[in-house]
Amino acid sequence: MTTIDETLKIIKRGTEEVLLEAELIEKLKLNRPLRIKAGFDPTAPDLHLGHTVLLNKMRQLQNLGHEILFLIGDFTGMIGDPSGKNETRPPLSREQVAENARTYQQQVFKVLDADKTKILFNSTWCNQLTSVDLIKLASSLTVARMLERDDFHKRFSNNQPIAIHELLYPLLQGYDSVVMQADIELGGTDQKFNLLMGRELQKQRGQAPQIVITMPLLVGLDGVKKMSKSLGNYIGIDEPPDEIFGKVMSISDEVMWIWYELVSFRSLDDIKQLRLDAEAGRNPRDIKLLLAEELTARFHSEEAAKTAHANFTARFQKGQLPTDLPLLELNHAGQALAIAQVMKQAGLAESTSKAMQLIQQGAVRVDGTRVQDKAYQLEPGGEYIVQVGKHRVAKIKISKTC
Amino acid sequence: MTTIDETLKIIKRGTEEVLLEAELIEKLKLNRPLRIKAGFDPTAPDLHLGHTVLLNKMRQLQNLGHEILFLIGDFTGMIGDPSGKNETRPPLSREQVAENARTYQQQVFKVLDADKTKILFNSTWCNQLTSVDLIKLASSLTVARMLERDDFHKRFSNNQPIAIHELLYPLLQGYDSVVMQADIELGGTDQKFNLLMGRELQKQRGQAPQIVITMPLLVGLDGVKKMSKSLGNYIGIDEPPDEIFGKVMSISDEVMWIWYELVSFRSLDDIKQLRLDAEAGRNPRDIKLLLAEELTARFHSEEAAKTAHANFTARFQKGQLPTDLPLLELNHAGQALAIAQVMKQAGLAESTSKAMQLIQQGAVRVDGTRVQDKAYQLEPGGEYIVQVGKHRVAKIKISKTC
Repeated sequence: MTTIDETLKIIKRGTEEVLLEAELIEKLKLNRPLRIKAGFDPTAPDLHLGHTVLLNKMRQLQNLGHEILFLIGDFTGMIGDPSGKNETRPPLSREQVAENARTYQQQVFKVLDADKTKILFNSTWCNQLTSVDLIKLASSLTVARMLERDDFHKRFSNNQPIAIHELLYPLLQGYDSVVMQADIELGGTDQKFNLLMGRELQKQRGQAPQIVITMPLLVGLDGVKKMSKSLGNYIGIDEPPDEIFGKVMSISDEVMWIWYELVSFRSLDDIKQLRLDAEAGRNPRDIKLLLAEELTARFHSEEAAKTAHANFTARFQKGQLPTDLPLLELNHAGQALAIAQVMKQAGLAESTSKAMQLIQQGAVRVDGTRVQDKAYQLEPGGEYIVQVGKHRVAKIKISKTC
Repeated sequence: MTTIDETLKIIKRGTEEVLLEAELIEKLKLNRPLRIKAGFDPTAPDLHLGHTVLLNKMRQLQNLGHEILFLIGDFTGMIGDPSGKNETRPPLSREQVAENARTYQQQVFKVLDADKTKILFNSTWCNQLTSVDLIKLASSLTVARMLERDDFHKRFSNNQPIAIHELLYPLLQGYDSVVMQADIELGGTDQKFNLLMGRELQKQRGQAPQIVITMPLLVGLDGVKKMSKSLGNYIGIDEPPDEIFGKVMSISDEVMWIWYELVSFRSLDDIKQLRLDAEAGRNPRDIKLLLAEELTARFHSEEAAKTAHANFTARFQKGQLPTDLPLLELNHAGQALAIAQVMKQAGLAESTSKAMQLIQQGAVRVDGTRVQDKAYQLEPGGEYIVQVGKHRVAKIKISKTC
């Protein structure tokens, strides 16, 4: 049996906020499967790793024995943009929604346990709402409170139009929680206002308010911006194994640790050990290989992951580089040599300060892995492929002896 | 045949605004009965003279051959106050609405021609609206535009709560115009924003926008505030003939002319003639008697009006005052005597300046009619009952000779 403290530790892993933790503890004490709501858009079911932050949290709760209610918000999707001003949001037909739902399931069940997941559509109950019901729902909140929502507030202050029906959507999302009798709702930090709406409406209707758990947005491959399709800094969970593996290997060490917390299934204790190993001198590249293998395996299979690993090593350590690449041996009195020094001596940078710049820009890879740590050193004995951008490359060996 | 110019003159009589007049002229040129919408609350069908300003305009349009659509807004009335915060607005049942509608008809057909009036209930079409329809309706306008409405603007600026459903009501009122394909909508000046909503929605849905005609609010018996039940300065159209007659006789001359324009059926030419008569020295009291008779006859009958007139004269000229009231004869060299002088000489005021004050306060009546004109004179020959407040009274005669 997992104690409440242990459960709490698992639930809180990687979360941004838990509102309210005291209430969560009370719910856990009920000792029954809690009803976990997470809502998804019925459009664009092309999931990337960023989406799995939420899915992983759902999976963790599933592993703890709770009931996952995977809600597809098809009601508003089938309305489209009612003002007709947004041509990119045409209404979806019932068939399109069903098709999207199938694609969703295909993708999310790479993370979630299908047997323990209930897929729901909010059109089931929202279509039953009469205009009178909707008017009553609209009476639940004041205009001023609704305009406190971050994006509404900004648009209103900047005199950007907010159509009146937009005020109804958060209320409908809250209404979903009432109908679903959700114990917990999960969402991204950008959904916080809408998630709290569920609490408000549940309270108004005499239900115990749901706990709101927000997850941070995953940083993308670039290590700067949140992962998104439009920024191109993403890993699609339907991408081929080699792509997934290679993309994970391209992230910085810093990003790697964030990803370990948010998208790895390893326990926090395991991750702590990996950090200790790194501090003790284990090559971060090896630790990154473990993550690349885990994620590739999750979205494909163990076998596919192993093959991707082998392909990756082959590509960067042995092949696909000019075959006539000369081996350049550098001598640093049998000691390891800092990467900037290596670059200067190998003619990959004019100076160490220029080399530092390139490292900072993320232009430098060793054996295919981006290096952003300026203190990174090449150990004596091994052979390394050092690349700067796409076109400058050198095969380097650091002498073991003076 | 009435020309468009003449029609326009009738329509514009007493109006506050016509939006847009040019469009109204175009509609009149169509030479077909126009569909005239006027909406009424399903509650409190106890109409007073103030309400008849609108009813009279409807009657005038009816006389011009147009179709009156008397709309009872029962849809929102049957919702009540959905927030449940306002205990004074409980939802009305279908039976209550029907009962109220009957009382309405009883009352409004004292002004309107029943044969040319269609009574409609907006629940007929609003109950058909699905939540999706309502969301689409809500997308018709932005929050900022809606908050331009006077009372919303004030409440929002003063941090007074506006529940979100309140934003939907003006849209529903506009939707009524769409369904009814209204050519013209009539309402009080306080309804202007809601009336314009009809124009907006009709345009959005490809209809020719309705003309909006606003009527001013009728000033009450006190000559200062708008007529309203809560202020007690009203004439209920169901009041007994003597009450109506007496109340009309109690208004000031100034108010009388406003009422002539807004609530008399006399033609503007007739009224112009009455003004000329008054300027030529005709006693305004006589002109007021005509109005009192007209209004009493409208809400009761010609006969009842004549009886009320007789009762009024009897009460104030002959009876119901102390029978032993001495006749006080004042001599002003055979000339008329100003009211303040009369009051001072009869001991009804300590000084003429005090008398002026009392006149200004509306405390002075001559033969039961309030006198607020400080230049008012009592003519030689006649006998007058001059009252100050409820308790001071004198029977006065001005000598015809020196």
